[in-house]
Amino acid sequence: MIVLFTDFGVTGPYVGQMKSVLCRLAPSIPVIDLMHDAPAFDSQASAYLLASLVNQFPQGCVFLCVVDPGVGGERRPLIAKVSGRWFVGPDNGLFDIVAQHAMGKGETRWWEISWKPQGLSASFHGRDLFAPVAAKLANGEAPPGQLIDVPDDRLCRWPGDLEKIIYIDHFGNAMTGIRAANFDKDQIIAAGEHRLSRARTFADVAAGQGFWYENSNGLVELAVNRGRADEILQLAVGDEVTLLA
Amino acid sequence: MIVLFTDFGVTGPYVGQMKSVLCRLAPSIPVIDLMHDAPAFDSQASAYLLASLVNQFPQGCVFLCVVDPGVGGERRPLIAKVSGRWFVGPDNGLFDIVAQHAMGKGETRWWEISWKPQGLSASFHGRDLFAPVAAKLANGEAPPGQLIDVPDDRLCRWPGDLEKIIYIDHFGNAMTGIRAANFDKDQIIAAGEHRLSRARTFADVAAGQGFWYENSNGLVELAVNRGRADEILQLAVGDEVTLLA
Amino acid sequence: MIVLFTDFGVTGPYVGQMKSVLCRLAPSIPVIDLMHDAPAFDSQASAYLLASLVNQFPQGCVFLCVVDPGVGGERRPLIAKVSGRWFVGPDNGLFDIVAQHAMGKGETRWWEISWKPQGLSASFHGRDLFAPVAAKLANGEAPPGQLIDVPDDRLCRWPGDLEKIIYIDHFGNAMTGIRAANFDKDQIIAAGEHRLSRARTFADVAAGQGFWYENSNGLVELAVNRGRADEILQLAVGDEVTLLA
Repeated sequence: MIVLFTDFGVTGPYVGQMKSVLCRLAPSIPVIDLMHDAPAFDSQASAYLLASLVNQFPQGCVFLCVVDPGVGGERRPLIAKVSGRWFVGPDNGLFDIVAQHAMGKGETRWWEISWKPQGLSASFHGRDLFAPVAAKLANGEAPPGQLIDVPDDRLCRWPGDLEKIIYIDHFGNAMTGIRAANFDKDQIIAAGEHRLSRARTFADVAAGQGFWYENSNGLVELAVNRGRADEILQLAVGDEVTLLA
Repeated sequence: MIVLFTDFGVTGPYVGQMKSVLCRLAPSIPVIDLMHDAPAFDSQASAYLLASLVNQFPQGCVFLCVVDPGVGGERRPLIAKVSGRWFVGPDNGLFDIVAQHAMGKGETRWWEISWKPQGLSASFHGRDLFAPVAAKLANGEAPPGQLIDVPDDRLCRWPGDLEKIIYIDHFGNAMTGIRAANFDKDQIIAAGEHRLSRARTFADVAAGQGFWYENSNGLVELAVNRGRADEILQLAVGDEVTLLA
Repeated sequence: MIVLFTDFGVTGPYVGQMKSVLCRLAPSIPVIDLMHDAPAFDSQASAYLLASLVNQFPQGCVFLCVVDPGVGGERRPLIAKVSGRWFVGPDNGLFDIVAQHAMGKGETRWWEISWKPQGLSASFHGRDLFAPVAAKLANGEAPPGQLIDVPDDRLCRWPGDLEKIIYIDHFGNAMTGIRAANFDKDQIIAAGEHRLSRARTFADVAAGQGFWYENSNGLVELAVNRGRADEILQLAVGDEVTLLA
């Protein structure tokens, strides 16, 4: 299985062009669009979002991840193997939280991609470089690059839980980079001028009421029952949230 | 064939997460994204929209339908078999119009889903409960639940044709819940302050002119040739329309 | 491979309905969503966009293209075979630039589709007519129509390079209808009050700076590093650009 995680948006030709490469090079491998609206140009928020999603996918699957504001510049193209899953994309921190959360749970390995396609464009490495590499890995080929060392302190320059809004979903719910399992059920969370208590889910609070809950991916999420939390609580990606004592 | 009909939106990870479950549990079954912008939280409008679409799909196909504002609350999880097609989703009226329109055309059967997955989240039954059940049905397994009775008067609490706008499409055309086959070609329809006559299709009226026509799914649709009906006629989902005598 | 190129948008049931037809009639053929936000009702801008994308696809693939404001009117339904690739859609110029750019590089043939489905709707030929024809071609059947002549001067009524904005992408970058390979690296391009020099790619200019570059599909594209060119340079589809001497 190849899983796509990009900030390309759901419009335009880019996703389709990438999938046509996969279709030609790995025709028997299913491709899943996980998301194409990862926080644009924001490898940090994207890294926490990705880390919340990967454990639901089977061993051996290949994440083709493109949040790549530095495309065409000096950033390295990377492959990581973490907990039996492959990750292909730019070296800008996008895989650091996946790897940090996996520390102590098995070996993580990193490769710098050395393979180069004919006709590498300056602006679309997702199609020209990362998609062919993802197809190779999905087909069972060896990583086309050299093993490199990515030190633990690099992987830990960002905290394990990020006390910020990392994503606003279609319904206006605001995901944070905080894993809910680490916190008490009585925890109060402050976002702007709002103080939010925990609820189990939407159906447990009155319509229009704000709350936080453990979302289906294990993150602390700020929500309003039958309302848009982003508008009602005035939340945006990047806003800080505070865990009150 | 598994057909997806949700209000998840086309962004975010939810559709992809649901499809990855289907890919693992029913790898040989094609999955079609019918729509992911069903009227949000609105099981009534969604029910009329769904009913207009299902007859184009083959016998045996499984509709995985998630418009589920009551997720995590007391609403039952359902399976329906109507005219040879399966429907999986919440018991909030979403399948009532499909079943009502099929009355007298063969048996409809209903099951309450009793199967429970390990790790059922409170907020994402689409991924955790309904997708695995849809995969089972698509694989030919028996419905994992108990047969229940859904009385005809429950299925008829909403009318067969709903005189409201149920959906605004990408082009600004406004679908109603009214089946066009039931009405005269000379029928005038009032929406707000506008009086609309019937035309066969866009090409038959002048640019900028409003009209109604039988859309490709058999519904009465309000439109403007080469213009956005929602803006020009000031229409929104939920607005009432009137069939003038 | 069947490649979809439409202006249906990414919401609504239309794409899914078309894909369910393909799934039934050509179940073994992969389907790629190239784009569903082609410039709406604009067969000229769409024609240049399509022409920039087709060469990346393999011989034998079938482009199912629906930008069809004249649906239900007198425009002919067409099949074209250009450079070994099939094109199916309305006769409104959508394939003219693909064919014009291929002049002198092999034979282009055209068919008017004479096959008619049972139950052809007045407004959705993408589902009812073009999708079944695309499935037939993808399955290796002969074109279901009569060979027709489309004269070269018809194919050349629009220039080979269109000095206009034809598409704004998800990031705000503005594609023109101009093939970059035809122009000098020192070329200055004027758009509105802005004068833009060429850069290799985003990473080569300062954040916030406007420039033009050869995009990954070979077109001249106007962009701003880490900013939205459409907003900063005030660009919209249809705007003219000027190649300064």
